[in-house]
Amino acid sequence: MNDERAIQEVLARYVRAVDARNADDVAELYANDGAEILSYNRAGTPERIAAFTGSRAIRDAVANILPPHPALGWAHHATFDPIVAIDTDIASLQAQFVVFEVRGAQRPAAGWPKGASGGQGTITPIESGYYKISLRRTPDGWKITENHTILDLPPALPET
Amino acid sequence: MNDERAIQEVLARYVRAVDARNADDVAELYANDGAEILSYNRAGTPERIAAFTGSRAIRDAVANILPPHPALGWAHHATFDPIVAIDTDIASLQAQFVVFEVRGAQRPAAGWPKGASGGQGTITPIESGYYKISLRRTPDGWKITENHTILDLPPALPET
Amino acid sequence: MNDERAIQEVLARYVRAVDARNADDVAELYANDGAEILSYNRAGTPERIAAFTGSRAIRDAVANILPPHPALGWAHHATFDPIVAIDTDIASLQAQFVVFEVRGAQRPAAGWPKGASGGQGTITPIESGYYKISLRRTPDGWKITENHTILDLPPALPET
Repeated sequence: MNDERAIQEVLARYVRAVDARNADDVAELYANDGAEILSYNRAGTPERIAAFTGSRAIRDAVANILPPHPALGWAHHATFDPIVAIDTDIASLQAQFVVFEVRGAQRPAAGWPKGASGGQGTITPIESGYYKISLRRTPDGWKITENHTILDLPPALPET
Repeated sequence: MNDERAIQEVLARYVRAVDARNADDVAELYANDGAEILSYNRAGTPERIAAFTGSRAIRDAVANILPPHPALGWAHHATFDPIVAIDTDIASLQAQFVVFEVRGAQRPAAGWPKGASGGQGTITPIESGYYKISLRRTPDGWKITENHTILDLPPALPET
Repeated sequence: MNDERAIQEVLARYVRAVDARNADDVAELYANDGAEILSYNRAGTPERIAAFTGSRAIRDAVANILPPHPALGWAHHATFDPIVAIDTDIASLQAQFVVFEVRGAQRPAAGWPKGASGGQGTITPIESGYYKISLRRTPDGWKITENHTILDLPPALPET
C-alpha cells in the first residue's frame, strides 16, 4: 500500500473507531504526543473550542465525552474529498465530513405496519465540517500528530 | 490503474448499477459463484437477513426485489472511507455507505412558486451501514466473491 | 502524487472553492477554454439546463449565480465513488455528489436550552447528482476542459 492510501486509511479507521465508541482504537491512531483540537467554523475562520493533548487524554475524552449510542442507534462519521500532501516523514490530510445519526425504530409487537418496507427508523445529518490532520511516519505506521476538527454548527457545550 | 483503485471502482460501478436498477450490470460485477449476504447490524453484531448465491440469483434479486424509482425519483448509494487489503489474487474492501432517496417535485402548471430556487423536491437518507466485500482476481478483472451488506436500520421484510 | 490522485484532487479543490464561494479558485481549476454544463437527470437521460464556456464566464457564473451563505450558514458539496480513466494527456472523472446545506442556530441570549448538546442547527441534503468531468494535462497540472453536472432534482430557474 502506498503512503497516500495508508494515510487515508488512518482516517477510515478513525471514523470506524469513533462510531464504535472504541476509545482505545481511536487513541491508537495518534502519536503519543498527538493532539485533538476542536474548532467552530465561524464564517470560514476556525474558533477554538477545546483541545486534548496526548493519546491518553484523547482516549479519555472519547470515553467520557462521546455519548453512547441508544438502543437501536448508531452513527457514521463519513468523510469525502481528501487532499493529501506528503513530505518524506510528515504528511497532511484534509477531508470534509458529515456525521449521520442513525435511530432505528422498535418493531411493534404486532409487527411493522402494513406496507412498511426497507429500513425502519431515521438517518439524520447532525454535524459537518472539515478535518485538517497532520501525521508523522513511525515504525508503527503513520500516526496522527494533530487532528484539527472544524465544526460547521455552533456547538452547545456542557459549560455554556 | 493499480489494484487498489481497480477494487474501489468495482464498488463505484456497483452503486451506479444498483441506482440505475440495472440488474445485469450488478450481476456482471460478481464471480459466477459470488454471494450477496444481507445482515442487520444489531448493536454491532451482524444478524443474517438473507443470502443470494450465484450471479444469476443476484441478478434476479436485483430485478425482482429492488423497487423501481417512481416518476421524478432516483437514488444514490454513496460509499465512504474504504479500507482495502490485497493478498495477491484475493482482496477485501470495506466501506461505509448511506443511501439517499431522491424525490423530485412535479412542476406546477403555473410554474414554480415565486422565489423558488435550485432543486425542487427532497433528498432523504433512508439506509446506512457497512459493505464488507471479498474479491478475486480473474481474467476479466476483479470480481466480487461475497458482498456482505450490513444494514443499520431494522428492516421491514415482506415475510414479517 | 500519481495522476489518478491528482485528478481526484482537482474535484476535491473544486468542491471546497464552490463551498467557500471563491469564484477565482473555481475558475483556476478550468482550462481557459473549459466549459461548465448543467443538466437535469430526467429519468436517467441528461437534459441541458445551461452552459458556460471559458474560465472567465465560469468565474462570473460562480460569482453572480451562487447565492452567498447566510449568517451561520455553510455548505458541503460532497463527492463519492469516483471512476477515473486516463489516456496519456486527457482524462475523465465521474463522481456522485450530494450538496448539504448547513444552517446554524443563533445562540439565544439566555444560552442554549437545557440539555442541548452538540451542533445546533440543521444539515439538509438539497441537491444530488453526478459529475462527469473531462480534463487535460497542462504545464500547470490537470485542468478541467468540461464539467458536466447532472442534477437529480428538477431545478427552479430564474427564467421559468
